Amino acid sequence: MKIYDFPTGPYPARVRIALAEKKLQSRVEFVLVNLRKGEHKRPDFIASKNYSGTLPVLELDDGTLIAECTAITEYLDALDGAPTLTGTTPREKGVIHMMSKRAELELLDAISVYFHHATPGLGPQVEIYQNREWGLRQRDRAIKGMHYFDSVLRQQPFVAGEAFSMADITVIGGLIFAKLVQLPVPGECEALSAWYTRMQARPSVRDQLALVPPPRDAAA
Amino acid sequence: MKIYDFPTGPYPARVRIALAEKKLQSRVEFVLVNLRKGEHKRPDFIASKNYSGTLPVLELDDGTLIAECTAITEYLDALDGAPTLTGTTPREKGVIHMMSKRAELELLDAISVYFHHATPGLGPQVEIYQNREWGLRQRDRAIKGMHYFDSVLRQQPFVAGEAFSMADITVIGGLIFAKLVQLPVPGECEALSAWYTRMQARPSVRDQLALVPPPRDAAA
Ligand SMILES: N[C@@H](CCC(=O)N[C@@H](CS)C(=O)NCC(=O)O)C(=O)O
Ligand SMILES: N[C@@H](CCC(=O)N[C@@H](CS)C(=O)NCC(=O)O)C(=O)O
Repeated sequence: MKIYDFPTGPYPARVRIALAEKKLQSRVEFVLVNLRKGEHKRPDFIASKNYSGTLPVLELDDGTLIAECTAITEYLDALDGAPTLTGTTPREKGVIHMMSKRAELELLDAISVYFHHATPGLGPQVEIYQNREWGLRQRDRAIKGMHYFDSVLRQQPFVAGEAFSMADITVIGGLIFAKLVQLPVPGECEALSAWYTRMQARPSVRDQLALVPPPRDAAA
Repeated sequence: MKIYDFPTGPYPARVRIALAEKKLQSRVEFVLVNLRKGEHKRPDFIASKNYSGTLPVLELDDGTLIAECTAITEYLDALDGAPTLTGTTPREKGVIHMMSKRAELELLDAISVYFHHATPGLGPQVEIYQNREWGLRQRDRAIKGMHYFDSVLRQQPFVAGEAFSMADITVIGGLIFAKLVQLPVPGECEALSAWYTRMQARPSVRDQLALVPPPRDAAA
């Protein structure tokens, strides 16, 4: 299989972490799509790979295309018939999907909107429409979101409960993006910071973080 | 189980359709949360039911809360061990999740943002911040999205391929919301319209649509 990818991007990072957790890296060929050059917004990419014009996109050997991190993670996690990231019981599936979606809405996607709308983002060639006020609102939403996830992690060891899951990976994506845009985790969010330190002990996360450049050179 | 619900809301409609498809309606007690009165934004609802302040929310008998339509659908579909809405093979799961998420991004959520930001929405008491320009952008995105789903449905009978799935339900949610906000499906989107007519032959969809009031009395 192929993954259209930008190695340091916070969303591609979610899929790279999932691949490492499932020990599937060696089965994937990564194809670079240069976000800074806006290659993901070219009509050809949109028509042939992902209508929404975002990365990552998984392409199976039969040509099937799967965009969206959550969808790609579902696919990868189901491949060996032994899901470890998306749950096995109905309750686990429901809670993991809820928490992962919440981590998008309240953290990762909010930071992405901030980046693309209230900072130079990917540069003037790519960011042809910006709504600064909306971007700043989403930044505030993300900071509130950090406090929310902190409160969750005061009660339980992982974002969706007692076990590592896709929901942890989504929050990790959020904190990777937060670092790129220099939105530090508030000092009082001690449980969130302690959890993030624990996450970085996982090889899947540690190896991904090693790719992330210091903020000033960063692309997202 | 309980569902915190507003019967004519397009998102709650997704879960009601999923319940009917799975023949689970009789196992659910619906609890009305009045969106027009902003009951979903009250601190108590946010603290005790759903941090994101949206409906629907599923509450299990053991007190577990599951918000987010996709997460609730995952739960309901897994209950009988025989999923019919969210896929069984890895490829089906991946494609269904992608198309359902795309239907949110490019249609349903876009219309929701339009409604809350560029129309009176739920009224001045509830819509305390509006960003009209962003709302109008999202309206345009939704109309483009209708053309996109039309192009998909010219190639295949259902949104995610050869079988009815959660992705169809999400597009149905989008078209329910489109009607409420009086954004008609463009006449040239013949495949989308024909598919929608077919969808309305399903009892699950027909019964839900029978609840939806004419636009002028509508709440969303
Ligand atoms: N909903 C998508 C979002 C993916 C996304 O936004 N990816 C970033 C790369 S880190 C992107 O393509 N951004 C470019 C842009 O939005 O212009 C997912 O979950 O995969
Ligand atoms: N991402 C949520 C969205 C749910 C949603 O927006 N629900 C509407 C009801 S139709 C709502 O609560 N809107 C009220 C608001 O946003 O103020 C989901 O998929 O469940």
